[in-house]
Amino acid sequence: MSRIAPLSGFPEWSPAERVVESHILDTLRRTFELHGYAGIETRAVEPLDRLLAKGETSKEVYLLRRLQGADEPDEPDATSDRGTAGDTLGLHFDLTVPLARYVLENAGRLAFPFRRHQIQKVWRGERPQDGRYREFCQADIDVIGDGTLPFHYEVEMPLVIADAFARLRSIGVPAIRISVNNRKICQGFYQGIGLTDVDGTLRTVDKLDKIGPDAVGELLRAEQGATAEQAEAALALAAISGADTSVVDRVRALGVTNDLLEEGLGELARLIDAAMVRAPGVIVADLKIARGLDYYTGSVYETTLVGHEGLGSICSGGRYDSLATDGKRTYPGVGISVGVTRLVSRLLGAGLVTATRSVPSAVLVSVWHEDSRPRSEEIAAALRARGIPCEVAPTAAKLGKQIRFADRRGIPYVWFPAQDAAGTGEVKDIRSGDQQPADPSAWEPAAADLWPGVRAGDA
Amino acid sequence: MSRIAPLSGFPEWSPAERVVESHILDTLRRTFELHGYAGIETRAVEPLDRLLAKGETSKEVYLLRRLQGADEPDEPDATSDRGTAGDTLGLHFDLTVPLARYVLENAGRLAFPFRRHQIQKVWRGERPQDGRYREFCQADIDVIGDGTLPFHYEVEMPLVIADAFARLRSIGVPAIRISVNNRKICQGFYQGIGLTDVDGTLRTVDKLDKIGPDAVGELLRAEQGATAEQAEAALALAAISGADTSVVDRVRALGVTNDLLEEGLGELARLIDAAMVRAPGVIVADLKIARGLDYYTGSVYETTLVGHEGLGSICSGGRYDSLATDGKRTYPGVGISVGVTRLVSRLLGAGLVTATRSVPSAVLVSVWHEDSRPRSEEIAAALRARGIPCEVAPTAAKLGKQIRFADRRGIPYVWFPAQDAAGTGEVKDIRSGDQQPADPSAWEPAAADLWPGVRAGDA
Repeated sequence: MSRIAPLSGFPEWSPAERVVESHILDTLRRTFELHGYAGIETRAVEPLDRLLAKGETSKEVYLLRRLQGADEPDEPDATSDRGTAGDTLGLHFDLTVPLARYVLENAGRLAFPFRRHQIQKVWRGERPQDGRYREFCQADIDVIGDGTLPFHYEVEMPLVIADAFARLRSIGVPAIRISVNNRKICQGFYQGIGLTDVDGTLRTVDKLDKIGPDAVGELLRAEQGATAEQAEAALALAAISGADTSVVDRVRALGVTNDLLEEGLGELARLIDAAMVRAPGVIVADLKIARGLDYYTGSVYETTLVGHEGLGSICSGGRYDSLATDGKRTYPGVGISVGVTRLVSRLLGAGLVTATRSVPSAVLVSVWHEDSRPRSEEIAAALRARGIPCEVAPTAAKLGKQIRFADRRGIPYVWFPAQDAAGTGEVKDIRSGDQQPADPSAWEPAAADLWPGVRAGDA
Repeated sequence: MSRIAPLSGFPEWSPAERVVESHILDTLRRTFELHGYAGIETRAVEPLDRLLAKGETSKEVYLLRRLQGADEPDEPDATSDRGTAGDTLGLHFDLTVPLARYVLENAGRLAFPFRRHQIQKVWRGERPQDGRYREFCQADIDVIGDGTLPFHYEVEMPLVIADAFARLRSIGVPAIRISVNNRKICQGFYQGIGLTDVDGTLRTVDKLDKIGPDAVGELLRAEQGATAEQAEAALALAAISGADTSVVDRVRALGVTNDLLEEGLGELARLIDAAMVRAPGVIVADLKIARGLDYYTGSVYETTLVGHEGLGSICSGGRYDSLATDGKRTYPGVGISVGVTRLVSRLLGAGLVTATRSVPSAVLVSVWHEDSRPRSEEIAAALRARGIPCEVAPTAAKLGKQIRFADRRGIPYVWFPAQDAAGTGEVKDIRSGDQQPADPSAWEPAAADLWPGVRAGDA
């Protein structure tokens, strides 16, 4: 039998840690729904050829095969590993490929623009490292149009994320910075200065943070055939960032003229204008942001936790003019995806957020004797009927032991049933020692004690 | 490229159907937490040897391999498909095997008895059919002890489930019947009448519903070597069922004496006694219930939707004296598992439960002109700040078109911003046509309209 041990890349949380993750997930879901995004889930598997259609992720896919699959040759078997890529199933590595398939499969039944959120696990067979997992949770929002999709949805995406994270500040989640760019700016600018390999240039410029401007300039000259002036101009564009629309003026000051560039600058200005009003200080333009730009066609986003920039982006996305197409119709979309596991892992690992207790119970109902357990159960049922989470002591141990049972789990109250049928029970706040007569049909815990909460850690 | 089509055995819901599933899941989670069960999630994968340790499910397991796994021979690779069963990973087919591993892995950090709920997808490579899926959602509760686990937790399991389903009655979920048995009764009874192959006898009696008592009696004689009298006695035991403790008297009236039988009857009586008080009419003793009894060691449960008995059990479980063991310590447990996908699939398929709308938005804020979109966004932000889900119209189309946009999605209210800065906006209930001046910092929708709800369908 294999050793009992954690699997690298497959994080699991303790019950108290899961309270933190659940709070984050509930907050994201609630914010997404306040903004009108309908929740869906898709199956965990997709045909391999769909997973590979983007070309770049083949290494990361987990394939499935049934242990005894070969025993059933007569079955119309979508899970065989002996067939073509269309017959083989793999675990999805993001929620965008499944969304594209879901939209095509259900196009006739969906109302467009289709606003959906999706919070699910995804799997990538990558080498695990800090912030990178083989199984992790993503929380995505996307808006999908039928044929067209107005630009204003590109403004909306980072504002929804800003709203969600604003709701998380009070529990100790650091501030975020959402960096935005627009592919049209880069593409138009490069074309305007005579660089034709836009994707190659983007990929090279994307290395700025890793290798620095001198090395990027060298690569642009060596690999993209850029002149010294072209390389300098591309680097000058990438160096521009800022939280207001002066970034647009600074791009124009570089003196490049191109229609696509102008379109991109207009869009970026609209986004930044809205951000200054609705999420001041959160959203900044950063013209070196690339994010796999051969996929995106307009705005792109990436997000860092302030003070934890080394963690990488915790929330990324962008506009894609062709999320899906069935040959007749094309569905453009814009979306953004929160890397929940990466975020939660850092919040827990750095002690930024902590749960107030590890169990849901606000009350432990004690048991005097095993014979009186039904009376304790009755009290618990009365509390639950009023929405108060509780549990009954496991044994009729000495009261000190029952109180320690509650204390170890962070359960704040212990209920002592009346010892005779006529008497009234009492409830003790085991933190303060305060003990009062109490009626299970009327007593209320302090509001902050009702459910496990989360708060800023001591880190 | 593979055809866009549903995959048999991998159900997916529309946004409106997902509202129903989410309501069910939220109700289960909330009920479990009211009863003090802490939520955890485990990774989707386990080493193959752990998945196969129970011996009977090997056919059902989906194995994983990385598409490019062979390219990385230097990696300490837990996911290779060329190693031993301990190196190979498979998707979990239930939440009990992962729980056993989680308990062993975290034993030193968990507080026992450990009450946990777990709501996750599981995968089985079975041939799909009505009520059987290759990917489905389970919602489990278990209580795990360290060394010992008092019997009263076996009473608790079906009562928590009864509580959860009682909360679902008002939305159209049919009544449930939880059938309970106790392995000690069967084992003690069979031993008492001289049948030594207890597991074989149980497996044969388990076929009663399929092949009837005559055929079962014949098999008992042919395969278990039972005499006519032994077969008759076993069938007489299996025929006993009822909602009160008279079932115990009827077993005793069969005249078999055995200590284990007596212990089982005492336990069953305690369970039924509690059920009559706390969940009258829901829990019945049914002495033919078997449920893979070579695994269970005490109470066993299975649950049918009244009127939908052909669907099979929607919630099953039982007591297992050895959930997990590390050689030094043994962890007994009792648990019960709701088959959420089977349940939801029937509720939707039979039109028993329906969502009040398919999107979260209670309000569509209309847009007069694209230039005035910021004003509409401001109104939406004010509503959201007060917890009212809403969205802004996708385009400044004619008002009739905007109202139809809301109508198609079931959004009950359309907000018309003031056309001049000084004016007040108005909100229209598009069902009644009622239109009133409204202030986004004060207006409230009818409580029933705030979020999408679920209600009994027209079936």
